[in-house]
Amino acid sequence: MALSQPPVPINSAATTSSEQTKATLKDVATLAGVSVATASKALNGQPKVNADTRVRVQAAALQLSYVPNTFAQSLISGKSNSIGAITSDFQGMFCTPILIGAEDELGAASNTVLLANARGDATLERNHLDYLLSRNVDGIILINDKTTPRTPMIIPNGIPAVYAYAPSTNSDDCSITSDNVGAGRMVVEHLLSCGRSKIAIIGGDQKATASGKAALDRLEGYTAALHEAGLEPAGPVRFSDWSEPWGRAATRMLLDQGVDFDAVICQSDVIARGCLDALKERGLSIPRDVAVVGHDNWMNVSLGSAPPLTTVDNNLEQIGHRAARALLDAINHKPHHGVEYVPCSLVQRESTIPRG
Amino acid sequence: MALSQPPVPINSAATTSSEQTKATLKDVATLAGVSVATASKALNGQPKVNADTRVRVQAAALQLSYVPNTFAQSLISGKSNSIGAITSDFQGMFCTPILIGAEDELGAASNTVLLANARGDATLERNHLDYLLSRNVDGIILINDKTTPRTPMIIPNGIPAVYAYAPSTNSDDCSITSDNVGAGRMVVEHLLSCGRSKIAIIGGDQKATASGKAALDRLEGYTAALHEAGLEPAGPVRFSDWSEPWGRAATRMLLDQGVDFDAVICQSDVIARGCLDALKERGLSIPRDVAVVGHDNWMNVSLGSAPPLTTVDNNLEQIGHRAARALLDAINHKPHHGVEYVPCSLVQRESTIPRG
Repeated sequence: MALSQPPVPINSAATTSSEQTKATLKDVATLAGVSVATASKALNGQPKVNADTRVRVQAAALQLSYVPNTFAQSLISGKSNSIGAITSDFQGMFCTPILIGAEDELGAASNTVLLANARGDATLERNHLDYLLSRNVDGIILINDKTTPRTPMIIPNGIPAVYAYAPSTNSDDCSITSDNVGAGRMVVEHLLSCGRSKIAIIGGDQKATASGKAALDRLEGYTAALHEAGLEPAGPVRFSDWSEPWGRAATRMLLDQGVDFDAVICQSDVIARGCLDALKERGLSIPRDVAVVGHDNWMNVSLGSAPPLTTVDNNLEQIGHRAARALLDAINHKPHHGVEYVPCSLVQRESTIPRG
Repeated sequence: MALSQPPVPINSAATTSSEQTKATLKDVATLAGVSVATASKALNGQPKVNADTRVRVQAAALQLSYVPNTFAQSLISGKSNSIGAITSDFQGMFCTPILIGAEDELGAASNTVLLANARGDATLERNHLDYLLSRNVDGIILINDKTTPRTPMIIPNGIPAVYAYAPSTNSDDCSITSDNVGAGRMVVEHLLSCGRSKIAIIGGDQKATASGKAALDRLEGYTAALHEAGLEPAGPVRFSDWSEPWGRAATRMLLDQGVDFDAVICQSDVIARGCLDALKERGLSIPRDVAVVGHDNWMNVSLGSAPPLTTVDNNLEQIGHRAARALLDAINHKPHHGVEYVPCSLVQRESTIPRG
């Protein structure tokens, strides 16, 4: 179509900037010289509109920067094109990256995300779910800040749900979580490749309510990889909490008890920070005397420490992507079942590999 | 109404658990023995329904755990009872607590939050805005991760918007942000009350693109409070970035240049962590020799350090509450204008006050 032959008459009143007044479907119909019903059919891709008319209506919509009212469209399609996301954390360190990944995937499929934060409270989560269902969401993503399996929610009317990070205990549900066992193997294999063999382990909190599944799954990975190399952990493996003071205390205990080690695997970056401090206060050099590995890749903690920490990235955005993809599949009647594990990535920095 | 006289007949088919099949308005009408139109009017509080009928319908709705379809309701009221929230950060450290506060306030008023994350990209923000508007949101909250003023968005059709954390540069807009000047005063007054008077300052990043406004506003507060006490900062005030390595470097520079100081104000907790390490490596005791203050109250950083950090909490949830309140007011035709400042809180720990 040549630019010298505009498909529709230029109407200065109708072309007022969309920044000022939003064009309606009626404006589009007027500009295209068709009825509102015809304009609607043309824009919604219905077959009973002839090609010329469709082109005229689309050109008018483009000229007016017409934004279709998806709210009304959804009444026709029976779908709301919206997804309810229920998160559970306070600071957003785990849920935000998962949400970002989910939003990318859903946004690409023109879905809106309706957000609710249950803050770990089951009753609040139930209330949020009822509320989101009353907004006619097409599906639900339940995002937790732990990988410990959770009680599934009972969701009426066959509306699909996907569990992200904390898998559902019902194996028929679709869950996307982190491969903590694989992460454990990965860390040991890295340390072995750096020539370390006397590897101590400082655990986080092994209680189910405090990411205990992650602590135990990672331990399973460490011990399997050590065993394959004919090794055992150096000294006892202790668990307490995910804090930096615990990292300091556990490291001092290893040193005071005369455990012979050339590497420490800490189950979080925060624990690793405490470990670094306790090693340095005894005059030990990292990584020359002892290599240290964390977990989580929290930039503020892992990148700011001296030396910067080798750590494990949980690939949380990827978990969000996969969960959203699985949910869209379920909405399109191709549900996934069971737990899918997203591999972690090792981020190698100076706490295990000296620079230069 | 006595329990022995149920207001409506018990219908075992209709009372199937709401977990299995969701009750419809038709089920409620059938159970109450009225038409669907009457049931709808009774539940929506319309005046032309007599009191007996209203009670019967409400009891039926209760018995069936009927969840009204707000999606259809909104078509009648012309409001969607949904709010679009556009956030901007990657890790959620700032935006998540603001969102939590906003959600609490909006949820109490039965509004759904539609979420979109623009990740600091203006084009993506514009696209998200258009999309949220196409979902007929009643208002928009724009949440940024910095307090540096931002270019306002042009929002069509008089749909209200509120800016949270980063205020709009248009003083006619409503913005809710943090009182960084007040926070600066608060920190100096605390150190003076602890008997410190030789107060060094380590700045963050003063560039507008990197929370520069927060750095400069806090400095304004420090210098005003020092000036009132007849004091000046100890040594030069330097800016670089918000990192821990910068905290270490800046502290070493103060020590190497022989600056006489008994306290250091660090413009973030992460900077303060670096400062603590640099002081300790020179054999200084905190807070005996030097008191250290951070900013942000990021628990992992401030609570885990040795000693735990006195810091400033930005009260981000409160900012979210106030922004949501202002938006609801604007939707109800009582718009706020200009910038509202939410006071910060000082969190006092052992880095300025010895325990016991």
